[in-house]
Amino acid sequence: MQTTDFKTVAEKYKVIFFDAFGVLKNSEGLLPGIEHTFNWLQETGKEFYVLTNDASRGPHELAESYYKQGFYAIQPERIISSGMLAREYLDLKVHNGTVAYLGTEKSAHYLETTGLKTLPISQVDLKDVADINALVLLDDEGFDWNTDLTKTVNLLRKRNIPVIVANTDTTYPVSKTRIAIAIGAVAKMIETIVGKQFIRFGKPDAQLFMFAYERLKDVNNISKRDILMVGDTLRTDILGGNKFGLDTVLVLTGNTQPQDAEVLIRSTGIIPTYICKSVIIR
Amino acid sequence: MQTTDFKTVAEKYKVIFFDAFGVLKNSEGLLPGIEHTFNWLQETGKEFYVLTNDASRGPHELAESYYKQGFYAIQPERIISSGMLAREYLDLKVHNGTVAYLGTEKSAHYLETTGLKTLPISQVDLKDVADINALVLLDDEGFDWNTDLTKTVNLLRKRNIPVIVANTDTTYPVSKTRIAIAIGAVAKMIETIVGKQFIRFGKPDAQLFMFAYERLKDVNNISKRDILMVGDTLRTDILGGNKFGLDTVLVLTGNTQPQDAEVLIRSTGIIPTYICKSVIIR
Amino acid sequence: MQTTDFKTVAEKYKVIFFDAFGVLKNSEGLLPGIEHTFNWLQETGKEFYVLTNDASRGPHELAESYYKQGFYAIQPERIISSGMLAREYLDLKVHNGTVAYLGTEKSAHYLETTGLKTLPISQVDLKDVADINALVLLDDEGFDWNTDLTKTVNLLRKRNIPVIVANTDTTYPVSKTRIAIAIGAVAKMIETIVGKQFIRFGKPDAQLFMFAYERLKDVNNISKRDILMVGDTLRTDILGGNKFGLDTVLVLTGNTQPQDAEVLIRSTGIIPTYICKSVIIR
Amino acid sequence: MQTTDFKTVAEKYKVIFFDAFGVLKNSEGLLPGIEHTFNWLQETGKEFYVLTNDASRGPHELAESYYKQGFYAIQPERIISSGMLAREYLDLKVHNGTVAYLGTEKSAHYLETTGLKTLPISQVDLKDVADINALVLLDDEGFDWNTDLTKTVNLLRKRNIPVIVANTDTTYPVSKTRIAIAIGAVAKMIETIVGKQFIRFGKPDAQLFMFAYERLKDVNNISKRDILMVGDTLRTDILGGNKFGLDTVLVLTGNTQPQDAEVLIRSTGIIPTYICKSVIIR
Repeated sequence: MQTTDFKTVAEKYKVIFFDAFGVLKNSEGLLPGIEHTFNWLQETGKEFYVLTNDASRGPHELAESYYKQGFYAIQPERIISSGMLAREYLDLKVHNGTVAYLGTEKSAHYLETTGLKTLPISQVDLKDVADINALVLLDDEGFDWNTDLTKTVNLLRKRNIPVIVANTDTTYPVSKTRIAIAIGAVAKMIETIVGKQFIRFGKPDAQLFMFAYERLKDVNNISKRDILMVGDTLRTDILGGNKFGLDTVLVLTGNTQPQDAEVLIRSTGIIPTYICKSVIIR
Repeated sequence: MQTTDFKTVAEKYKVIFFDAFGVLKNSEGLLPGIEHTFNWLQETGKEFYVLTNDASRGPHELAESYYKQGFYAIQPERIISSGMLAREYLDLKVHNGTVAYLGTEKSAHYLETTGLKTLPISQVDLKDVADINALVLLDDEGFDWNTDLTKTVNLLRKRNIPVIVANTDTTYPVSKTRIAIAIGAVAKMIETIVGKQFIRFGKPDAQLFMFAYERLKDVNNISKRDILMVGDTLRTDILGGNKFGLDTVLVLTGNTQPQDAEVLIRSTGIIPTYICKSVIIR
Repeated sequence: MQTTDFKTVAEKYKVIFFDAFGVLKNSEGLLPGIEHTFNWLQETGKEFYVLTNDASRGPHELAESYYKQGFYAIQPERIISSGMLAREYLDLKVHNGTVAYLGTEKSAHYLETTGLKTLPISQVDLKDVADINALVLLDDEGFDWNTDLTKTVNLLRKRNIPVIVANTDTTYPVSKTRIAIAIGAVAKMIETIVGKQFIRFGKPDAQLFMFAYERLKDVNNISKRDILMVGDTLRTDILGGNKFGLDTVLVLTGNTQPQDAEVLIRSTGIIPTYICKSVIIR
Repeated sequence: MQTTDFKTVAEKYKVIFFDAFGVLKNSEGLLPGIEHTFNWLQETGKEFYVLTNDASRGPHELAESYYKQGFYAIQPERIISSGMLAREYLDLKVHNGTVAYLGTEKSAHYLETTGLKTLPISQVDLKDVADINALVLLDDEGFDWNTDLTKTVNLLRKRNIPVIVANTDTTYPVSKTRIAIAIGAVAKMIETIVGKQFIRFGKPDAQLFMFAYERLKDVNNISKRDILMVGDTLRTDILGGNKFGLDTVLVLTGNTQPQDAEVLIRSTGIIPTYICKSVIIR
């Protein structure tokens, strides 16, 4: 398998879209040396956006998590999250009533600003659900899985309401060797049980890419040919980038192990334009 | 939709296979009058078996749950459960080591008699898993869903071992209007996450029917034409009975509501030989 | 089920997106009176686009098919087809070599203008495939199903190339009572056989809506709140419109029969903003 | 990966179940030296059965295909095919009328002996289908894929009848490097389109194993511990054998290439008891 130096690849593009987890950071924190990459982007005048399947917090909180580690390159307006799509959906399509949710209070807080009342599933009274007009699946934390997932199933048998899945990932790494079950997998289980069609936001879906692309069009004369998508996961970052018409880089610092990359590309048929060891520029 | 009286149907057969939940009992206990049906079976010399997707207890404990309600017609040897298939699998295919499980201690107790050591997932040490040679998903109770399901996923990333799902149901009723998520739905979620093929026991699979059929052959000269399968669920009882070559009765006292039966039969293409309101004989 | 008059609904919006088949026309031709609707749109200064899962021809040929029936309201620039997305993909992502295809010559002709050579699967020589850099599934006509689908499977075992499905529909009506199998269903079968991930264009995917939305932004100050999506199919038109953030109308002149609409909305959880009998204005 | 000599393995068992294609023969005919294996079985008094997902012919015709190659060890009564299960189903469950089928005349001929009239889909008149009481999918040959599959879909929209899939394989090899699409894949496509539940016969389903097992019980005192299942395909032969409680051998002369075996066993979680290069005894 031939890998290319990230700088050599990135030089050919005006804009870089980065996935966050597995590309800029991992379960142990920021990738060492990541600041050099962003310094170089600034020096060479390249635009960038971070596209993340994360609905656990709003863009300001997400940016703060970088600041706390002494990394100031990624401002809130550079972050496009699947949570923002969920929020736009509620803003456009749900005009009143209560939005029930699975996730932490923090994740719901970001949705609240749309003017709708939010209510954790744990506080839903199944005898009084007439006011609940949407359900959002935000995060795998903040609720009791057994009690609250069962309650969710029963809510959806009583109310025919839109269900928004704000993070399509099925797992995420919690250490070098262990993973946790993400809300996307839980959502799929409930969708199968109730037999309804949920609304999913997040890569590989085009809408997340479009959100970033539209921001670019306000300020620049940029075509899709000028944009490079960088990610560590074939089924989300690379498939989504390819489908949107972008050139893509698979990095080997996250979900895709160096020894598995070639087999996975062959077996899935998801083909990145380039493979780079990491985004670190030395 | 035309329904037939259960007695009129049952008179034509020598052996009746009954599903348990939704047919003999529901979330509120035994169906009132069920003893008349079993008295009639005894008087007319008909054989019967109870075929149940239940791995929460062994046949003796299942029979006891009927005794406790003053109903003595169903002895342990009349009960064929998916847990018995899981036990046979372990007996034939896993010769040593430890069997990890999701479920209550009671459910595991029944497996233990095979001579293997059993260990709840909660007590598994992920750093010391070399001795674990199988995983069995028994019941939706007896474990913490978040912690222990995540642990299960990580166990299956470390050990390539057979995974047995001893109950294929995805939900079960807990009251007239509410349902709970069963271990079959949880199993499907984990199977999708780890990408492996689990081994499922329970209706509609032929093996449960075969288990009952073999008992009959020891004592009688019975053909499949002499057996009637009675159930409340199209996708398990009726599909399984049909496929095994049996005539089938759909009863309307459980999963399938009278007002939905016709639409469901048409939309699924699963066609019972007869529809009866219930198995109660008056 | 409450239906609303289409004019009453449409008056509230500045732009209307129409599905074609089942909304403007059916297997017997244009819906009688459809010209009144488009006259009214013109008089009231409303913009419109036709969004169609059709890769059998380019927009000019699609517009001509309306002209031939004496209906001149829909010019080529008003038509957004899934074929246009396939063409954009090839233009951006496949830079040289040959594109193999399943479909008619006419459907491939539209792709050819991107500068790539196109070759029907029937003419592919499986011993000489090194030059084939993409495969596009365009239409269910123009090839022998047995021979050419088998050849397609073998091509994909030899070459790890992107596969584009330019029409996601699984069936289409050919008369009042009969349907035919569309290329989307065939694509799913081949995808399952080869175990690879194909790239799908067409409703409900956001990219088709985005294509239309971008055209609007060049000329107007339009927000998603000003746009109404009209379709006859819950899983494509309504799900896609809802997810994109648009208000939606389900019409009962195509895939969704009046007697089934309520049950389908309840069972799928796909909820249109309005239900109208048809788009015809009287 | 450690392989074991087949004779060393087989010596431990009283009965051997063989898959046919990829184990005894391949696209070029019988495996050279296969007669030595069957001579040894005879000398050592071992019973054997051939379990095959084949509904293209009855057991006599299948045995004849071995005779024609000068191999006389496999008599008709030694062959258990998925076609036999389809035939038993029709015999037990469909009492009158016509059985429509997809497949060759030869494949249907075997079903005909059940007393039902059979009719190829090509000859079905969609205006006169009241007499059609079942549909059987037998073989990928003998019909026009486009015309007759579309006709099949329309038949199933008009008649709510059981659909039997008599071969669950999705592909089969036609030469050393090429495969063809089998009726199992076509069945899955139609099942998805019409949204109904088909009845599938063939490995890995327990019913094929049970058919062979029952024959053994008539003549011997055999337990599942005495039986070895030999196959070339993890998802059918090995999964099915394991689930039925048998020890299993994966051979590398068919679907599973020597270089892929270990990866496939790890990724699918389907674990054979042994791996042998082939069943040939030297």
